[in-house]
Amino acid sequence: MLKNNLYVALIHFPVMNRKKQPIGSALTTIDLHDIARASITFGVKGFYVVTPFEDQAALANKVIDHWTSGVGGELNPFRKKALELIRVTDSFEEAVRQIETQRNEPVVTVATSAKAYNGSISTIDLKQRLEKEASHLVVFGTAWGLAEKLMNACDFILEPILGADDYNHLSVRSAASIYLDRICNG
Amino acid sequence: MLKNNLYVALIHFPVMNRKKQPIGSALTTIDLHDIARASITFGVKGFYVVTPFEDQAALANKVIDHWTSGVGGELNPFRKKALELIRVTDSFEEAVRQIETQRNEPVVTVATSAKAYNGSISTIDLKQRLEKEASHLVVFGTAWGLAEKLMNACDFILEPILGADDYNHLSVRSAASIYLDRICNG
Repeated sequence: MLKNNLYVALIHFPVMNRKKQPIGSALTTIDLHDIARASITFGVKGFYVVTPFEDQAALANKVIDHWTSGVGGELNPFRKKALELIRVTDSFEEAVRQIETQRNEPVVTVATSAKAYNGSISTIDLKQRLEKEASHLVVFGTAWGLAEKLMNACDFILEPILGADDYNHLSVRSAASIYLDRICNG
Repeated sequence: MLKNNLYVALIHFPVMNRKKQPIGSALTTIDLHDIARASITFGVKGFYVVTPFEDQAALANKVIDHWTSGVGGELNPFRKKALELIRVTDSFEEAVRQIETQRNEPVVTVATSAKAYNGSISTIDLKQRLEKEASHLVVFGTAWGLAEKLMNACDFILEPILGADDYNHLSVRSAASIYLDRICNG
């Protein structure tokens, strides 16, 4: 059981395009729903949607408002409860700052990638850290993954999710769900 | 490692609405992408999209064609490889029949639900069965889940995915991804 010290971030900038060039990505609203539902299922304390683009932030807030304050929440209180976990920030650093203010302690940042990195940690390692240590923020990239600059800025990198062979193109919705299940139940 | 004997089905009829009444649901195209990508990642042999509605089947086939024969597959060969796993059938029974014809043996059907059922099996049980036994078809419901009639028609029911408390409203995309990870890696 988590101790209210796990947070999740979904990054829309800086991420990579298919040519590994740094870009900003557009919001995919189903990401908000799926990752919020997985987050509340597995005991995540907060889900940060990070975009520097004002129109994309406005879209995110419109979706959230519909389900938390609007008619959506009346029709589906389960969805309301999930989307209430979401906070929209304009940068990764601002998400970290908000968590640190809320928790009054440093937050350990953990990047995710479909690629293997030397020195990466397993979800078992992360689970053990969560059982005894500070707040942790697990960071997911949209598009073709987190930009190297952001990977390097994180304290740890999680091992990739491996399958039957070398195909490593899960959706970020699937990857986040699997990682959270492994951290909670693994 | 799976032995090419695991299949997945996504059911659009018969499923339930929020009042637990049997309905048919509309296609959600992102389901096809996410579950196909998870399926190919974890070694699933075939992914059956089941809908009796001709317009919905046409939409599914249009999406599949775009990514497997059309320009989508040229732009993204990884997506092409995933969506090539999909077969569209008009009924659950027809999906079972096609698998049995292909495998030349009976297929064991395994329903999934967000609810707990007496006598359900775990993903560890299923993994052990897959290592030594016949072909298995894991069946996922859209909307508010599989209709009772279809649950009852299956040979087994998988244990629900449990989280931190009693919230059990994962998306079918998340649930399918988590179950496949557990079967492959658990």
